[in-house]
Amino acid sequence: MTNSDIPAADGVTPETVNAFVAQEWAARPTSSRCLEVSGRHALAAIDVGESQIRPGGFVSGPTQFAAADLALWYACFGAIGLEAMALTSELSIRFVRPAIGRQLYARADLNSVGSRNIVGSVTIWTDDPDRPTAICQGTYVAPKSTESAG
Amino acid sequence: MTNSDIPAADGVTPETVNAFVAQEWAARPTSSRCLEVSGRHALAAIDVGESQIRPGGFVSGPTQFAAADLALWYACFGAIGLEAMALTSELSIRFVRPAIGRQLYARADLNSVGSRNIVGSVTIWTDDPDRPTAICQGTYVAPKSTESAG
Amino acid sequence: MTNSDIPAADGVTPETVNAFVAQEWAARPTSSRCLEVSGRHALAAIDVGESQIRPGGFVSGPTQFAAADLALWYACFGAIGLEAMALTSELSIRFVRPAIGRQLYARADLNSVGSRNIVGSVTIWTDDPDRPTAICQGTYVAPKSTESAG
Amino acid sequence: MTNSDIPAADGVTPETVNAFVAQEWAARPTSSRCLEVSGRHALAAIDVGESQIRPGGFVSGPTQFAAADLALWYACFGAIGLEAMALTSELSIRFVRPAIGRQLYARADLNSVGSRNIVGSVTIWTDDPDRPTAICQGTYVAPKSTESAG
Repeated sequence: MTNSDIPAADGVTPETVNAFVAQEWAARPTSSRCLEVSGRHALAAIDVGESQIRPGGFVSGPTQFAAADLALWYACFGAIGLEAMALTSELSIRFVRPAIGRQLYARADLNSVGSRNIVGSVTIWTDDPDRPTAICQGTYVAPKSTESAG
Repeated sequence: MTNSDIPAADGVTPETVNAFVAQEWAARPTSSRCLEVSGRHALAAIDVGESQIRPGGFVSGPTQFAAADLALWYACFGAIGLEAMALTSELSIRFVRPAIGRQLYARADLNSVGSRNIVGSVTIWTDDPDRPTAICQGTYVAPKSTESAG
Repeated sequence: MTNSDIPAADGVTPETVNAFVAQEWAARPTSSRCLEVSGRHALAAIDVGESQIRPGGFVSGPTQFAAADLALWYACFGAIGLEAMALTSELSIRFVRPAIGRQLYARADLNSVGSRNIVGSVTIWTDDPDRPTAICQGTYVAPKSTESAG
Repeated sequence: MTNSDIPAADGVTPETVNAFVAQEWAARPTSSRCLEVSGRHALAAIDVGESQIRPGGFVSGPTQFAAADLALWYACFGAIGLEAMALTSELSIRFVRPAIGRQLYARADLNSVGSRNIVGSVTIWTDDPDRPTAICQGTYVAPKSTESAG
């Protein structure tokens, strides 16, 4: 069984993720959407704007970081549900190849889903998933909700 | 002698850094400026826009990442000069406190300046440097000299 | 096709990896061996000694770091051959669960194999791969060919 | 005021740190000691054994990681006291120069001391602090007190 086969939390689909994010975060900086989500992974697509292109014509590092952060956020939705607003605790990114193009893809796979911490790895690319532009790994923390203790 | 006392590379001042960045990167996404630069550190200020505020009212993680990346870039200018366009190789960021406000500050201190790699640490805050919102460390790579000489 | 199906570099098998490491590194601190290797992954087993147990009975963090480093090293052999002595450039590790036991396993999967840099992710566990104790990601650098040819 | 000037927690000195660690962790793998500790920093010295030398004559990466981990642990003692057994949550290390020698030094400076998380940066060297061999940054977590669970 691959990560993609693990069922997402109740009611979590690309459509509900996109609707939820649009509602919660009307002014978000990047035009992005969830393409796939399961209980252990997510795939995000990000439209790169003119202001996100670095001198030299490359997609900026922070834009790729934002893509990784989004994909991990979507994957956390798949693992623990839309209500559980997980927050990024730490994230490390390696830039391995110039990113040329106006469309980024980021695939997050979760390595560990604990009661409090979720750790995942992300691969980012423009046109070929076998030629990634950045590789990330990071930790999301599920907020301590008084409700969950109740 | 503190980092701030180490002289910047020839001709590198906050003014020349800001002029250089404005010229090279007209469409950059954030309104930012270099406030201090020496041969071992830089201080950057970033105006946070509406679209960079996350649900809940916090400055988004990618915006803080962008601030760290900028401060390290400025510090690399101070260490090796404006012409040497160092590129981010890897960067890890830890979010330690909610970032509330519309102005971010990022101070980068260089830990190691090698012939090829520069490693630095960054502290990010909104209104109190003793209450940082994020802590980063990363590596910049200076372009290969044979290439830049070519 | 999974990572495990990608053929290892010529002559690289668990047996040749173990023989090579035993020859090159007679005094290595941990009793470890390569169990699997392909062109994109490796699985390592490490016997944990008494001196590697922390107060509380847990396998120490540095021992788990060493396991991750070894598994990535083995995977680099699979990707680029035994002669190419790749060196660790950077490695980040997240400890997600107490490690209890005297046998560690570390599985490294390579995310990106470039001409110069190799990036991989590692999962570490004691008795259950679905309950990892640590998650890592890092970069190995292949020695510069011009140097090795010089 | 530099980090070194910030007073350590009550009763924390290099001598009490060394006595505490010797008592708690009799079988620890490396011969190490605390040379300095304040409320915001610590300096550790580590004797490198034969088994910690890599092929080529270099101090192994995991040995340097262990040095960083120790120095951060000592610094956490200085910040929050000897009783509060902080645990490593995550640590990233960059190797910037070959480490040649049989004595490692690691200096940890704390960037953020929160109620739950402590983030610090570490510089490692053999004979010259201005020529570091590795640069690290990581997070320690103070254990949840039994009171908060009560």
